Amino acid sequence: MSKDSVKLLNFWPSMFGLRVHYALDLKGVSYDYQEESLSNKSKELLEANPIYTKIPVLIHNGKPICESLVIVDYIDSVWPGSHKLLPEDPYEKAVARFWADFGDKKLHDAGDRLIRAMGEEHKKAGEDFKWALMKIDEALGTIAPGKPFFGGDAMNFADVGLAPFICWFKGYQKVGGFVLPGPEEWPNLYKWVDAVNSVDAIKISTPSDDKVTESVEHYRKSVTGAA
Amino acid sequence: MSKDSVKLLNFWPSMFGLRVHYALDLKGVSYDYQEESLSNKSKELLEANPIYTKIPVLIHNGKPICESLVIVDYIDSVWPGSHKLLPEDPYEKAVARFWADFGDKKLHDAGDRLIRAMGEEHKKAGEDFKWALMKIDEALGTIAPGKPFFGGDAMNFADVGLAPFICWFKGYQKVGGFVLPGPEEWPNLYKWVDAVNSVDAIKISTPSDDKVTESVEHYRKSVTGAA
Repeated sequence: MSKDSVKLLNFWPSMFGLRVHYALDLKGVSYDYQEESLSNKSKELLEANPIYTKIPVLIHNGKPICESLVIVDYIDSVWPGSHKLLPEDPYEKAVARFWADFGDKKLHDAGDRLIRAMGEEHKKAGEDFKWALMKIDEALGTIAPGKPFFGGDAMNFADVGLAPFICWFKGYQKVGGFVLPGPEEWPNLYKWVDAVNSVDAIKISTPSDDKVTESVEHYRKSVTGAA
Repeated sequence: MSKDSVKLLNFWPSMFGLRVHYALDLKGVSYDYQEESLSNKSKELLEANPIYTKIPVLIHNGKPICESLVIVDYIDSVWPGSHKLLPEDPYEKAVARFWADFGDKKLHDAGDRLIRAMGEEHKKAGEDFKWALMKIDEALGTIAPGKPFFGGDAMNFADVGLAPFICWFKGYQKVGGFVLPGPEEWPNLYKWVDAVNSVDAIKISTPSDDKVTESVEHYRKSVTGAA
């Protein structure tokens, strides 16, 4: 592993970039980090991801891998190690992939509308965001009853796909003008949040809620003019 | 394999459902088929996919698997057989996953706007659709130079992800009011289309271009009122 060249091109608040951080850090893989400016992307990023021109990109021994869940899958194949993220059992693996992808399809989609939309569409985004978290609470109770993670006692592919949204919860509530239900209503979700936040490998790259919130508020203002 | 109960819930023109057909048929897996009406979904579908309430769903020995690329991945794990869809090499696997996902992110997205949008947004959708096909032509030339498929001499995960769009090309052009460049401009793409269309396992479930086109025109009319 010591001879590998591993580099992550990223923009710090990105939940997609955090997925890659989490996967690498859970595996204990050493890597270089390059912070990108989204308004002035590096030549390296544009050449490494010519299709989407987006972060994150992992460059492993000169080869670029793009799209966060594809990257996490790649990391799990190259460095299986002692912390395998994808279950061996095909059905359990499909369940883990389904919930990681749910982060893209529902949490990110609703979150993006919380930042960009106004009026009824903005209100609907808040409802959709809360619905998505309720479904995650229910799923945790069904898939891993009594356990903290989708992966049971340790984070798996679903956890890595969804955990990066945790540091955005405060910002989404702030720009959405709503307050999420508490642990009484969503016990599995809050147990999961506490478990994720107590994993040392996760702490390494997770920005503070306040720093993310400031960034989210700034971004909403820049795209909508709304305070 | 003979003791397995395998059932596909689907709606015939769906490119997502066709992915599942293609994966099962390439593997030679026997399965039951249940056609769904999108305006009157079966109780079985709603219970099997409570999160998205969408086709396709594969029900294997009573367990539902949802989301087309998750299903194709599952099929490849359960029935690896002689036709493996995902490459063993982690980088080649990541490339295959990237291009299958490109079908969702770019082809389907642009195609959906070709059906639903009007005016400038509709025109932009046509440009985006052509851009996506151009990128597929380029990718084929880079990933599998001189070979017919993303998978080289046989279809892989990327081919299964993208091939279902082929029978939609005519319909997209019809409702988009544009004509795609020909084989002189996109030699790799057209070589790939011919290769896909000549695979016996693909012919089993692929509806005719004309039947899909009729469905696409009907759908655009129903959502926009446009002829």
